[in-house]
Amino acid sequence: MFLHTKHLQFESKPEKPDPVYAHKLQELLGGAYGEMTVTMQYLMQGWNCRMSGKYKDLIMDIATEEIGHVEMIATMIARLLEGAPATATTKMAAGDPVMGAVLGGMDLQQAIVSGGGPLLADSNGYPWNGRYIVASGNLLADFRANVAAEAQGRLQTARLYNMTDDPGVRDMLKFNLARDTLHQNLWLKAIEELLEDGLEDVIAPNSLFDEEHAEHASAIWDLSEGTEGTQGGWASGPQPDGRHEFSYLLDPQPLGGVATAPPPDPALYDTYDGAMGEPKGPVLGTETGPLGKLKDKLT
Amino acid sequence: MFLHTKHLQFESKPEKPDPVYAHKLQELLGGAYGEMTVTMQYLMQGWNCRMSGKYKDLIMDIATEEIGHVEMIATMIARLLEGAPATATTKMAAGDPVMGAVLGGMDLQQAIVSGGGPLLADSNGYPWNGRYIVASGNLLADFRANVAAEAQGRLQTARLYNMTDDPGVRDMLKFNLARDTLHQNLWLKAIEELLEDGLEDVIAPNSLFDEEHAEHASAIWDLSEGTEGTQGGWASGPQPDGRHEFSYLLDPQPLGGVATAPPPDPALYDTYDGAMGEPKGPVLGTETGPLGKLKDKLT
Amino acid sequence: MFLHTKHLQFESKPEKPDPVYAHKLQELLGGAYGEMTVTMQYLMQGWNCRMSGKYKDLIMDIATEEIGHVEMIATMIARLLEGAPATATTKMAAGDPVMGAVLGGMDLQQAIVSGGGPLLADSNGYPWNGRYIVASGNLLADFRANVAAEAQGRLQTARLYNMTDDPGVRDMLKFNLARDTLHQNLWLKAIEELLEDGLEDVIAPNSLFDEEHAEHASAIWDLSEGTEGTQGGWASGPQPDGRHEFSYLLDPQPLGGVATAPPPDPALYDTYDGAMGEPKGPVLGTETGPLGKLKDKLT
Amino acid sequence: MFLHTKHLQFESKPEKPDPVYAHKLQELLGGAYGEMTVTMQYLMQGWNCRMSGKYKDLIMDIATEEIGHVEMIATMIARLLEGAPATATTKMAAGDPVMGAVLGGMDLQQAIVSGGGPLLADSNGYPWNGRYIVASGNLLADFRANVAAEAQGRLQTARLYNMTDDPGVRDMLKFNLARDTLHQNLWLKAIEELLEDGLEDVIAPNSLFDEEHAEHASAIWDLSEGTEGTQGGWASGPQPDGRHEFSYLLDPQPLGGVATAPPPDPALYDTYDGAMGEPKGPVLGTETGPLGKLKDKLT
Amino acid sequence: MFLHTKHLQFESKPEKPDPVYAHKLQELLGGAYGEMTVTMQYLMQGWNCRMSGKYKDLIMDIATEEIGHVEMIATMIARLLEGAPATATTKMAAGDPVMGAVLGGMDLQQAIVSGGGPLLADSNGYPWNGRYIVASGNLLADFRANVAAEAQGRLQTARLYNMTDDPGVRDMLKFNLARDTLHQNLWLKAIEELLEDGLEDVIAPNSLFDEEHAEHASAIWDLSEGTEGTQGGWASGPQPDGRHEFSYLLDPQPLGGVATAPPPDPALYDTYDGAMGEPKGPVLGTETGPLGKLKDKLT
Amino acid sequence: MFLHTKHLQFESKPEKPDPVYAHKLQELLGGAYGEMTVTMQYLMQGWNCRMSGKYKDLIMDIATEEIGHVEMIATMIARLLEGAPATATTKMAAGDPVMGAVLGGMDLQQAIVSGGGPLLADSNGYPWNGRYIVASGNLLADFRANVAAEAQGRLQTARLYNMTDDPGVRDMLKFNLARDTLHQNLWLKAIEELLEDGLEDVIAPNSLFDEEHAEHASAIWDLSEGTEGTQGGWASGPQPDGRHEFSYLLDPQPLGGVATAPPPDPALYDTYDGAMGEPKGPVLGTETGPLGKLKDKLT
Repeated sequence: MFLHTKHLQFESKPEKPDPVYAHKLQELLGGAYGEMTVTMQYLMQGWNCRMSGKYKDLIMDIATEEIGHVEMIATMIARLLEGAPATATTKMAAGDPVMGAVLGGMDLQQAIVSGGGPLLADSNGYPWNGRYIVASGNLLADFRANVAAEAQGRLQTARLYNMTDDPGVRDMLKFNLARDTLHQNLWLKAIEELLEDGLEDVIAPNSLFDEEHAEHASAIWDLSEGTEGTQGGWASGPQPDGRHEFSYLLDPQPLGGVATAPPPDPALYDTYDGAMGEPKGPVLGTETGPLGKLKDKLT
Repeated sequence: MFLHTKHLQFESKPEKPDPVYAHKLQELLGGAYGEMTVTMQYLMQGWNCRMSGKYKDLIMDIATEEIGHVEMIATMIARLLEGAPATATTKMAAGDPVMGAVLGGMDLQQAIVSGGGPLLADSNGYPWNGRYIVASGNLLADFRANVAAEAQGRLQTARLYNMTDDPGVRDMLKFNLARDTLHQNLWLKAIEELLEDGLEDVIAPNSLFDEEHAEHASAIWDLSEGTEGTQGGWASGPQPDGRHEFSYLLDPQPLGGVATAPPPDPALYDTYDGAMGEPKGPVLGTETGPLGKLKDKLT
Repeated sequence: MFLHTKHLQFESKPEKPDPVYAHKLQELLGGAYGEMTVTMQYLMQGWNCRMSGKYKDLIMDIATEEIGHVEMIATMIARLLEGAPATATTKMAAGDPVMGAVLGGMDLQQAIVSGGGPLLADSNGYPWNGRYIVASGNLLADFRANVAAEAQGRLQTARLYNMTDDPGVRDMLKFNLARDTLHQNLWLKAIEELLEDGLEDVIAPNSLFDEEHAEHASAIWDLSEGTEGTQGGWASGPQPDGRHEFSYLLDPQPLGGVATAPPPDPALYDTYDGAMGEPKGPVLGTETGPLGKLKDKLT
Repeated sequence: MFLHTKHLQFESKPEKPDPVYAHKLQELLGGAYGEMTVTMQYLMQGWNCRMSGKYKDLIMDIATEEIGHVEMIATMIARLLEGAPATATTKMAAGDPVMGAVLGGMDLQQAIVSGGGPLLADSNGYPWNGRYIVASGNLLADFRANVAAEAQGRLQTARLYNMTDDPGVRDMLKFNLARDTLHQNLWLKAIEELLEDGLEDVIAPNSLFDEEHAEHASAIWDLSEGTEGTQGGWASGPQPDGRHEFSYLLDPQPLGGVATAPPPDPALYDTYDGAMGEPKGPVLGTETGPLGKLKDKLT
Repeated sequence: MFLHTKHLQFESKPEKPDPVYAHKLQELLGGAYGEMTVTMQYLMQGWNCRMSGKYKDLIMDIATEEIGHVEMIATMIARLLEGAPATATTKMAAGDPVMGAVLGGMDLQQAIVSGGGPLLADSNGYPWNGRYIVASGNLLADFRANVAAEAQGRLQTARLYNMTDDPGVRDMLKFNLARDTLHQNLWLKAIEELLEDGLEDVIAPNSLFDEEHAEHASAIWDLSEGTEGTQGGWASGPQPDGRHEFSYLLDPQPLGGVATAPPPDPALYDTYDGAMGEPKGPVLGTETGPLGKLKDKLT
Repeated sequence: MFLHTKHLQFESKPEKPDPVYAHKLQELLGGAYGEMTVTMQYLMQGWNCRMSGKYKDLIMDIATEEIGHVEMIATMIARLLEGAPATATTKMAAGDPVMGAVLGGMDLQQAIVSGGGPLLADSNGYPWNGRYIVASGNLLADFRANVAAEAQGRLQTARLYNMTDDPGVRDMLKFNLARDTLHQNLWLKAIEELLEDGLEDVIAPNSLFDEEHAEHASAIWDLSEGTEGTQGGWASGPQPDGRHEFSYLLDPQPLGGVATAPPPDPALYDTYDGAMGEPKGPVLGTETGPLGKLKDKLT
């Protein structure tokens, strides 16, 4: 269960309105790496976490913080839109270059749909959606996604930092940048700890190493012209997991047969000249199951 | 420019058809962490790479390999669908439990839309889309996303490995597992090398450290009940970036003011009682620009 | 079956072209509360209506009108785009502020994709989709959605009314505003009539009142800081349905246990330390069904 | 800023796992009228609310509660999935009708993607998205959408109540049903209060009545065959807003001209025979603006 | 403006309910090539048509018919769902294989969301959306899309025809198949007529032939291994447009330079070693425009 | 398996950067008829092709070429963005009309998300998705979709050609125009050859002519006011398939019964007055199947 305070985690107040910047800031609210994504990603990871204790508590701490970040950005956008020429006409835009520039840069739906408020969408107007998040139940795989999300988040925040010189906006972004720095460090540290605790190892998931074709876990295939890739540390030597050696396959040849699709079911009307014969029937291997016996009895 | 060979990178041939498994395998083709995602993610990263040399060549090598993985999964799906009871009626499904189980587990569009072939969609029928990929231009941030994608990819492949006992399907998945192991190692190694080459550092982007509010880059806020989080290595001590110390803020108080939205433009018809006065006009600071002078002249 | 007349329900002719406004008007065509939504919402409600008679006939009357509204907006957009500088270059935009303002405000796809015509998308270019509509079969629930849709529709129309001073555009919007007024009144009246006819009551659906936990149908939980909410009419007294009393729970405490997720299936590779033991198997309760007997026999 | 307690608002514990029901319950989590929608709808309405006081506090109270409902449903889904035959093969499904029925009814991504946990998607696997919510700034229009959302939510909950007989699941749903009853009453009461406070009236927005074509705010057009609609209370008499009378137009004739699209820009290559002449140029009305004067000067 | 009759264009009545088939039939209602697509595609083409006369009238005739086809399929789905075990429990499905097969094959949202009615979605539950349609203004390009849509539509209808033996359902599909046959012939004929009328030619658009690099309009590049393609009629001889000859380029070599991305803006934090120098500034060519003069004056 | 060369198929180098044009060019990369669509459409058609030989080889040749077109457009976009004022402030835009025009026309995500590179999205920022492609297995139906796609592609390219005068951009577009011309001719020729080879006929699929209601394959129904349609060649005479005659039905009457939905399941809470009685139960016709016998035995 959640509780809400009226105060923002950090101040979110522009010195002056700037409706064009309000448009850009949508990326940090509803973009693929915006605050909605980390909020829901961490909440779902926390609820899906299979152990009580430090990991779950940490995830829920950060998740709960991120809801407050959505609140900060949403509030900032509404304030940046104060006094925006939202209902100005084309004539007004065409007759005054300053207004033309502002109107050309605004998000139309912030006026028409939200009445001067934020949208749950990114800076191109595309709505945030649930396929952006990952909560797989495997903490190593998920924490890596978290590091990646915080890295993209800080990168976009840094770009947006350079797109404004409003001291109030920058003050909030300086807080966000610092939190993104901390959170990158945090998930990196949590990954270390998963390994120290023996819960996971370098490769996710930490399993099926005996089953996988180990002979294909070494060589990078040189499938794009040029061999500059061989100058990297990945061209030879031990791999980070300590299990494998790197190598570079410079003249790669396909190992599989020719790619073909089987004869089609005639009732699907695929174009087919019959050259490959009839399709085989599905063999579902129920010969020994109880229904197999049942069928024998009844037919 | 690309060239295509007829042969698959690795054999992709089931021993027996299995239309239910063909449904599940869609996740590896068109899911958020399937082969389409890594293909387009790496291609776009390669085309967007700002340096010639080892990194770009490596990215393009792996990207080109991944197109071939899309081909392998697509071919496997078509072969698993051979002889599927695609046009069976409800009566047939209801009258035979084996067929009922198979029909209930099939992807309807693999029959109706693709005529017994694969879709560019995931195992819930949702189409692959371009917001799944990331190619930010910052190689550290992107390589982290690549590690994360390969980790999720191997995890899903491992889960799918346990959902079949067909030797042919498993043979292909053993190859995929090995490649996902290699690619995790690879991107981890490439991240190390970015740091060794001095191109990036632990935090992405490697910049704005003087601007960000450093005092907020240390403390995890205990916003979710319970203090088990303080038992982690992230509760104190140096952070992975070597710049900051970890700490835990156990009684967090909001630092910002009350969250409020400003007085609205009356022409937008937001509900408002006028208590906060009139909205201020946007102040765009053009007083000293050339248009400012122009306006002065003309008005 | 439908028939079409060549004439528009109401005139839809701008005095002058205005390609920027054509962009904004997309919201009324393909937005979440645009004409496409009410068209398809009402059609699907009508086809899904379980009674012949006045309700179904009414729904189909309004639904059929709304197709004509899509036609009106689509026609208006095409006319607003007449003579638009659709193929002007960046140089032309940069060299002439009037053209710059116009080009900056245009919808790129109206030119590139539609050749100077409307799109089935909203003012941010996002396509209309079938998840926008609701046709649940419960007329009370659906008519409420209709009132809500007409209210949002009139609100957006009013905002757009203030964004133009073209007499022709305004003439059409004056018609649309009036229809949205009528349709709000209409669905409100139809809700009244559902109650008078004894088909529904205040709460949708009008059922399961004995089953629901009635003790939790009274109190608003004060989960957000501040008690201003208690100054509202919802703080005490009878509820609109006449069945319940309002109250305000000022010190809410959670009623449930700790949120945890169960031990995972090892074959899914979730991170887990085993502390919670093994997962229990699914218990599907078929012990007494015919298959249960069958299994007993066969095994 | 938000805080989180470990305890659920209400218990969310099934007596027995049921992976098929876990699939259905996704609708209440990530469907268009599920808990994610009301959570984000109310949060955005609260942040976009233009007045401090009772309305804003109420909205934030309910919004904060709804985050906890997402948590309850997410926890329930994970628990329903305990021990699910997530990695069973097609052979196992085909060989045992009970398992076949269970596997055929499961959500594939709950296993492959989430490792036995919930998704941010509906019961057809479609991800939740930000276009589902409405936060227009007009409280009347938005509260109506809230009533509608709670009505659809209670309706779907009631349907799902009948799809299970698990006492634990039903216990939670009985709480949800009661909250949905309360919340319908609540938003209905809040609408009443908006009118009593003089902030809004029956029609949203409460404006532009002098501008709209009042003569078209009365008549329902009989555009669908049959006159049963005239038997309703909407056929005559005063409208709920007290401003208009209802009437029924039984022989409706279009009021507008023929729908036509204007001559196209030749550079867009629309098919056109020239019969309508040349397109007129856009007339943006800047003749008297400062740029008009500027152009005169410079050319 | 549109009118509606109560009667269906053609009977749409199943002999018996079949809820599994109701799921499959969603493809014809809301799929990419279902009735919603042709309805909206033709309506938008008609409204966007730049000539009065036979083409526009034809498009509107067919478009209006297609709305009635949406109605037919929607009605059929509701009728197929009569008596569906929509609220049956998992226990019931697991305990009775017939019910298990039926429940496993049903569309969950047809019960939970629509109350036993159709959805605006395809057979995998994905909502219909406005990006499915094309209405470019160029009739040749659009009529080709129409032929393609009718071909896919008839193909899917034929596949679905084989998935039922209900005489009532088949009776309706026989009508649909016939209409799809007619409509394919129709759009093919209309393409012929566009050429006869001199409005279009073989290639769309019928323009820019002098500008395009004619030397690259002949040769198919043999970029995929194997030369079987040269056995086709497209390997040599005149092309259908009468302007070009076919040829096959068997040893294709790239004509362009190496693919590289330019030096990045430092404020975007792309990874870059500086090897390519500084980015050049944008050159927008306004030196001679009025603003150029203006700038000169004012600075 | 695929291989990659470093060189582009054709040069893709603008004379000068133009960030506004980079925005427009997104349509050719990630639009519904852009290069991503034809790439994935042809690849999936090739992998789904049911015959070895000339058709499959041709499809794969063109498919492989199209990946290289994605590369060309992606490279062009990155180069057009060189030196773009990506991080300029609103003040800078408002203070300088040239910069205002440029910033107003840029794609915000090309800066914030991609760091000056391309997106997998169209010119309105909507991501490319897998529902755009068609690969049905029926080559006639698919080749028609290919002709249609190349026609729309050339049309959009032609429109974009007129939106730039940069010689480098135009040089690339001249190549693209020529390829689109060739590919239209190519798929038209391949359709001819399918007929000559006896694999398909005029109507897709070439089947079910005896089953379809042939009496409804002739007449166009005059459902939209006006009879100009009868002036077309489709009003009478033989149809292109040689099987049918065209006719025009000038006074069309519906052939079906009244559209109604059946009595609902009470547990779904649809609004219903009981006038139509009880719903009938599903009749699944298993009376003679093995389970029918089993049930008889066990009950």
